[in-house]
Amino acid sequence: MDLAIDWVVGFVDGVGHFLVHVEPDPQSEVSYHVRPEFLVVQHERDVQVLYRLKRFFRCGVVRRRGNSEYVFSIQKFRCLQQVVAFFERHGLKTKKNVDFKKFARIVHWMENGRHLTREGLVDIVKLATTMSECDQERLQEILDALKQQAG
Amino acid sequence: MDLAIDWVVGFVDGVGHFLVHVEPDPQSEVSYHVRPEFLVVQHERDVQVLYRLKRFFRCGVVRRRGNSEYVFSIQKFRCLQQVVAFFERHGLKTKKNVDFKKFARIVHWMENGRHLTREGLVDIVKLATTMSECDQERLQEILDALKQQAG
Repeated sequence: MDLAIDWVVGFVDGVGHFLVHVEPDPQSEVSYHVRPEFLVVQHERDVQVLYRLKRFFRCGVVRRRGNSEYVFSIQKFRCLQQVVAFFERHGLKTKKNVDFKKFARIVHWMENGRHLTREGLVDIVKLATTMSECDQERLQEILDALKQQAG
Repeated sequence: MDLAIDWVVGFVDGVGHFLVHVEPDPQSEVSYHVRPEFLVVQHERDVQVLYRLKRFFRCGVVRRRGNSEYVFSIQKFRCLQQVVAFFERHGLKTKKNVDFKKFARIVHWMENGRHLTREGLVDIVKLATTMSECDQERLQEILDALKQQAG
């Protein structure tokens, strides 16, 4: 049986993650690439529910992480656009929605290619530093490096 | 706006807990009392969602735990019966449902007063040891003590 929309929203309110990774990329003109990721982690006993999420979103991969965990991960940009559209229509009820809105803004900026310009990248990294699960120290280093590039 | 039933099921699939505490009770003929508890824990930033769950179930209390967490807890027996009836009607989709079914069986046993007899208490503690979040070592000690009482 298919998962109900509200069940998916409730489950993601509970255990979903909206992450924005920023990684060195020597081939990029701005030296970094931006990789948003939507993630749900479960103990291996619940891997089946991750496959049901994969069917629900018609996107993503399920893979093992560590000894006893599995993750459902969506990273493909086209799929992330679908995820963003879904949670824009069906709002999260916890403060995770604050993170989601920042995540969505970054995805929309990327639709317009802003991650490919230094100014756009700075805005993305600045916004990413305000998300609750970010590695603030690392993102600050990247911001500093981007400022040096400009200087 | 009220929470949707499916949202509540999804959220509890993600972050709910069904616990059965067994505690020493000198006033009880069987020396222990059984205290089932339905629990949802959130960071303080999401305390509002715990109050929405409280309104949804028309039961339970919200209280602070530690520095930055809040819990929504249902322990009153009449309220636990409502919780059991709710999740019997609206099944959990993760393996948490396995724990829930054991929890529900224990609540139903208590409706029949089985926790007040030594034999019933042994059955309850045995079933509780198979639940995924139990303190197995402690429950085993209680089982040993109950066997000694009988011996």
